[in-house]
Amino acid sequence: MKLQINKQELREFLLYSSMKQLNEYIYHVHPADILDVINDNKEKTLLILSKLPISVVAQVIDEADNDEKFYLLNKFPEDKQKEIVKEMSSDELVDLIGHLNEEASNKIFEKIPKEDVADLRQLLSYEPQSAGGVMATEFIKVSEDMTVKDTFKYLQKTVDDVESAYYIYVLDENDIIKGVVSLKEIVVNNFNTPISKIMNNQVITIPFDMDQEEVAHKFEKYGFATMPVIDKNDKMIGIITVDDIMEILKDETTEDFHRLGGIDEGERVDSTVKESVKSRLPWLLVNLVTAILASSVVSLFEGTISKVVVLATFMPIVAGMGGNAGTQTLTIVVRGLALGELTPKNSKVILLKEIGVGIITGISIGIVVALLALIWEGNPILGLVIGIAMILNMVAATVSGFIVPLVLKKLKIDPALASAVFVTTVTDVLGFFFFLGLASVFLKYLV
Amino acid sequence: MKLQINKQELREFLLYSSMKQLNEYIYHVHPADILDVINDNKEKTLLILSKLPISVVAQVIDEADNDEKFYLLNKFPEDKQKEIVKEMSSDELVDLIGHLNEEASNKIFEKIPKEDVADLRQLLSYEPQSAGGVMATEFIKVSEDMTVKDTFKYLQKTVDDVESAYYIYVLDENDIIKGVVSLKEIVVNNFNTPISKIMNNQVITIPFDMDQEEVAHKFEKYGFATMPVIDKNDKMIGIITVDDIMEILKDETTEDFHRLGGIDEGERVDSTVKESVKSRLPWLLVNLVTAILASSVVSLFEGTISKVVVLATFMPIVAGMGGNAGTQTLTIVVRGLALGELTPKNSKVILLKEIGVGIITGISIGIVVALLALIWEGNPILGLVIGIAMILNMVAATVSGFIVPLVLKKLKIDPALASAVFVTTVTDVLGFFFFLGLASVFLKYLV
Repeated sequence: MKLQINKQELREFLLYSSMKQLNEYIYHVHPADILDVINDNKEKTLLILSKLPISVVAQVIDEADNDEKFYLLNKFPEDKQKEIVKEMSSDELVDLIGHLNEEASNKIFEKIPKEDVADLRQLLSYEPQSAGGVMATEFIKVSEDMTVKDTFKYLQKTVDDVESAYYIYVLDENDIIKGVVSLKEIVVNNFNTPISKIMNNQVITIPFDMDQEEVAHKFEKYGFATMPVIDKNDKMIGIITVDDIMEILKDETTEDFHRLGGIDEGERVDSTVKESVKSRLPWLLVNLVTAILASSVVSLFEGTISKVVVLATFMPIVAGMGGNAGTQTLTIVVRGLALGELTPKNSKVILLKEIGVGIITGISIGIVVALLALIWEGNPILGLVIGIAMILNMVAATVSGFIVPLVLKKLKIDPALASAVFVTTVTDVLGFFFFLGLASVFLKYLV
Repeated sequence: MKLQINKQELREFLLYSSMKQLNEYIYHVHPADILDVINDNKEKTLLILSKLPISVVAQVIDEADNDEKFYLLNKFPEDKQKEIVKEMSSDELVDLIGHLNEEASNKIFEKIPKEDVADLRQLLSYEPQSAGGVMATEFIKVSEDMTVKDTFKYLQKTVDDVESAYYIYVLDENDIIKGVVSLKEIVVNNFNTPISKIMNNQVITIPFDMDQEEVAHKFEKYGFATMPVIDKNDKMIGIITVDDIMEILKDETTEDFHRLGGIDEGERVDSTVKESVKSRLPWLLVNLVTAILASSVVSLFEGTISKVVVLATFMPIVAGMGGNAGTQTLTIVVRGLALGELTPKNSKVILLKEIGVGIITGISIGIVVALLALIWEGNPILGLVIGIAMILNMVAATVSGFIVPLVLKKLKIDPALASAVFVTTVTDVLGFFFFLGLASVFLKYLV
């Protein structure tokens, strides 16, 4: 096969090459690229899959999304499925089964070798979004008293079973981690070197119940290709690889984006009209309730507005600017929580800072709007009313933008999920209340 | 040193251990953890740094943020700086120099070994946010005609100079990539095996000018620990490692979040009041201009409002719901662009879908609001007016939420940067125009 074939060439290769050619070169092709060709040629899925060796099919299914995994597996007869499932990596198998109903998952279990069933049930018992839920159980372990040469021999026997061989973990007889050696160390050190001499005993471990987002922070901090997972007795039970973390980070980011924007995390740019409406309408209805709340505040002041109709003209400015200021604080707080930069320790100082920012931006914007009102309508009292309302609302905006996500987090609700609704409700309701309330108080100077 | 010391113990170790102890164990400690201790004990920075071996100092500086790198380096006298810079990896050195003014960067250049200066200038010539700008030039290359044994010998001589030894690249005499071998293959294969037999010739490469966000997508897709970078003549010039990509993804995500939320990408949750005001006030002023635009639309209809003051009550609902619907479409489109899921190919279908979603959600919300107006005010024409305005504004919202980010992207402006401002301007202005305009047309039925 020529160097670096493109997608079109890969399609030709998968569809039309002889079995001999295929078996010779298919192991050079990345399974993610094979999956791409399958997804672009759905009608040929079976044709392409049936030509591939079982181990490659397992890799392709490993690459696929959870729903897709089941779809691809079901293209094969029962006996083939058994062989494929046997070749799949434990973490991907858990993802596959975890997304199925009981009947379908039982069918998969029937296909799994007896000796692996208990392990798999154990894996499935972990919280899906925790370290235990995303780890794989295939890793290389050696003992302290082995030499480099022993390790070599051991690797040559076993290394094909493991997903990644970047690090070799040194465990004692109770599976407690004593150290870690990189494959690089094995290669560059003398055959007679004891592993205990070249291992690093400062191993950074991940507890099985750590949330996957926090696991991702550990990977960001340390830059390892894999990290070991330990159970509550400090026994090493699996590894997490950085490619799983990349996937997790992508999903968590999309989830945060979507929740802040008021759509379901599962919606995609190519979702159908029906899916999109289902994703968005509930949020719009929630927002409608809050909009009605804001409207009912306005309705309280219809008498005032009917006498000073210019108040209606300035309403969008008060509410809009408060909403923007609240969103700004909300953004920095939600992102700060996601990055682990906002902690109970520094939260008090940051609240004070946000109040300060609210006062300063409020005064700045308040003066501009007050001058605008003065010039536009020639009424200094109107300027004063809107200026003060603006300052009060900007402070309310930064305070609510800070407090709402933290309270949601305390209540174990994702701060990205509902913060925006609450914050804009606060800024709309209070904004109208401050502005129209002050206007009512100073009514005789405005008419 | 005992297994897995904690932060407090590491602090004690760094501050109070003897030089002998320190030199024996310091290589077991992750430089990111050393950096943490330094950051938590700023007043002891010099004391800690001065005890560390030069190579560890270089690693700690590699881990630091760009501003921090210079600060830490400057703690040392000139001659020491020279030694440290020599030990730093090329990509981190580029980050350090790229963030300095000319005078400071010249000072660094004086400290760099003559033979490395040309290479470094070449690296600095690449766009900082492109593959060339983030790659490192230290990688392992062998030739096709070597055996596993040759490779071993070569690795034992050279491997200490390279950042990561996950993959070994097989290049021809012109540095064109012929294949790639993982270190795992080297370990498990027989000594006499020719490299050409075990290498994979389907190497996935990164062009030097690829944007870093696209590079991150490649890593997400393929899950490699490192990927090779090629120049315009297909010569391999460097590698990108997944830990750099994690950093890039974090930064790009924060940038998108902040831009959508209307704050500077550099603001952090612990920024000072002054920094935060500087980050947010310009955006608030931009928003003020658009709020004034919306207000002036309202002012056109003051005559109508003065006759039917209840219109003021319903104004927040029309504008608010339009803004929410626009934000929903904007969110899915901006994220779809960032993930590479929205392409020129599928954009027409998606626009049509968004129009469909706008019509359906518009009709749904429109009916609810119309009924509300009917019940609240007992006027069916008011219900009709607000219902129709709602439908029109929701469609305007989804269309503008779709088109604005795409137009910005065409204009090479980050779609996350200014989309929200434009979209809410559209929904505010059109929302008030539709609602108050229709109300003026049907005025005689409303009073």
